[in-house]
Amino acid sequence: MTDETPGGRMNAEIAEQPGVLAEIVTRRADIRRVADVIARRAPRFALLAARGSSDHAALYAKYLIEVLLRLPAGSVSPSTTTLYDARPDLSTVLYLTISQSGRSPDLIEVTEAARRSGALTVAITNDPASPLNACAELSVDIGAGPELAVAATKTYTATLLALYLLIDGVRGGNAGAVTDIGALAEATLTGGAGAVRDAAARFRYVERMVTTGRGYSSASAAEAALKLAETSYLAARAYSGADLLHGPVAAIDADTGVVAVTSAGHGGAAMRGVVRAVRGRGADVLAVGSAAAGMPASSRIDVPETAEEVAPILEVLPLQRLALELALARGVDPDRPRGLNKITKTR
Amino acid sequence: MTDETPGGRMNAEIAEQPGVLAEIVTRRADIRRVADVIARRAPRFALLAARGSSDHAALYAKYLIEVLLRLPAGSVSPSTTTLYDARPDLSTVLYLTISQSGRSPDLIEVTEAARRSGALTVAITNDPASPLNACAELSVDIGAGPELAVAATKTYTATLLALYLLIDGVRGGNAGAVTDIGALAEATLTGGAGAVRDAAARFRYVERMVTTGRGYSSASAAEAALKLAETSYLAARAYSGADLLHGPVAAIDADTGVVAVTSAGHGGAAMRGVVRAVRGRGADVLAVGSAAAGMPASSRIDVPETAEEVAPILEVLPLQRLALELALARGVDPDRPRGLNKITKTR
Repeated sequence: MTDETPGGRMNAEIAEQPGVLAEIVTRRADIRRVADVIARRAPRFALLAARGSSDHAALYAKYLIEVLLRLPAGSVSPSTTTLYDARPDLSTVLYLTISQSGRSPDLIEVTEAARRSGALTVAITNDPASPLNACAELSVDIGAGPELAVAATKTYTATLLALYLLIDGVRGGNAGAVTDIGALAEATLTGGAGAVRDAAARFRYVERMVTTGRGYSSASAAEAALKLAETSYLAARAYSGADLLHGPVAAIDADTGVVAVTSAGHGGAAMRGVVRAVRGRGADVLAVGSAAAGMPASSRIDVPETAEEVAPILEVLPLQRLALELALARGVDPDRPRGLNKITKTR
Repeated sequence: MTDETPGGRMNAEIAEQPGVLAEIVTRRADIRRVADVIARRAPRFALLAARGSSDHAALYAKYLIEVLLRLPAGSVSPSTTTLYDARPDLSTVLYLTISQSGRSPDLIEVTEAARRSGALTVAITNDPASPLNACAELSVDIGAGPELAVAATKTYTATLLALYLLIDGVRGGNAGAVTDIGALAEATLTGGAGAVRDAAARFRYVERMVTTGRGYSSASAAEAALKLAETSYLAARAYSGADLLHGPVAAIDADTGVVAVTSAGHGGAAMRGVVRAVRGRGADVLAVGSAAAGMPASSRIDVPETAEEVAPILEVLPLQRLALELALARGVDPDRPRGLNKITKTR
């Protein structure tokens, strides 16, 4: 596909990911320098600010920070600052703002406010010259290159990897879990291509989809739902596997397509009962991840196994491609979605 | 309707809310005693743990804590403790666990762990004899009485009011904004009845709905989507008004029913552009709230005006009744939803 073909841009950027990820690993010393500053300042608490796909990257970072750094971490609601002018005391707080463009006015405003309130502010963006980088004390460049497709793909996985390297660096890790992440991403995309095509055919006429995951993979489920909603105009909604059984499972029936993210580790293991419950309601369940083979699902997309905390970097890749192929199968050009802008000017 | 009529239980419990709310206000001194302990301990951060409807109450509490107490507040992912055994240092942290039953095993586990890690733990439940109350250092009884319908209604608004009284108490407030909340709830339900009936007729055949709000009211939008999904099996999804414009607006078209929560104040004012954008995509937009009359929506349900920070207690009432009436119009008994249990045993 070229940039003129429907979905050509999104397809090209999905395919760039193995190279982008491998390149970030070669720049890990730059990220480590930022991590060392954070480690020296020894924050007591982490707050994350983001919107859209970046908010799913923030959810992933929350797990990394709580599990690997043993620090409490929470997502902020930017509106408390931008609408209500809340000014909490943020000394000893690590404040991570994630925005691929670095240009969302509300995120710039909350980051400036956090810095004035004493937080150690860190911008994670795809543009070192962005205003967000200028207002944060430290910044991490994800270096994914220009993203032209409207749906974020390579900036999402690049952000996940940069966050992993950053947080692994703060704990003094050696980035061992991601040494081969580029090659594994390549293997994920190549190995899963047939299964993605089958899944796109299977879900072509579906009107509602539910995506679900647990632990680290809840970020992947959230991002998959957003991609499906943005590109295919599907009513796609993500639930943590735990929340799903707490109520919304009632809405799942034989007309619902379910994507269950199931990678090896604690999160995937906890998904077995969820997959069984949704299958029991007659839903068509696609399991995606390195533990997909062991799930009582209807079909599956396998992903190479990694340490659980880096699985989200891989397991979202076939889901991005599923969103692309499903859009094309439904006659929609995912590069020209209705009503979607790259930067939001919300306040 | 009686308990034998379809939806009879849910209907009865919706109607109990004015009385339940008025009664909580009379017990405000009990909640104030808990608030005084919190104020003396002067926490630096707040963390909130909850699932399902209670998680929407937690979102409301996050706004209250950040705006009224100027403390950073974040939602925890219970899974970081229950799946990954994360053990952050939580001294100086106020840890609020919200659960109407007080019996969700994962919430009990995270609360025990938070208390061992040094947090000031507070349980907010509808059962003072619950195991969650036993493991938390302090507790607040919402006192809504037994809730028999499967969809939470009166426990949700009772929790919001208890949280408001608690946090207003921590800042030394006099609860002035909620003195008449029972009477206002009664006026909301009575005054909105016709408009709710019209809205149920209007949305009877819709297959997908989006709910949206900003600021404090984002909790109301989230809770409305959950009620609609649970009782009517609709594909209903909530977005903050800011997030909606950041991408998912692409999925909104003339076949989408949109509920925009628009109460007077900063949040409602920020919704005007969102309502205009979704109307511009041809969607049928129902505005609900005290500022609904001024919105460029297709139809509206008015709610009496209050201080913005307590509007969520009222604006959800007609949305609960909309979920009930829509379920009945679609031939579903909301008291007997498929696959829904009152307590989840997720780990």
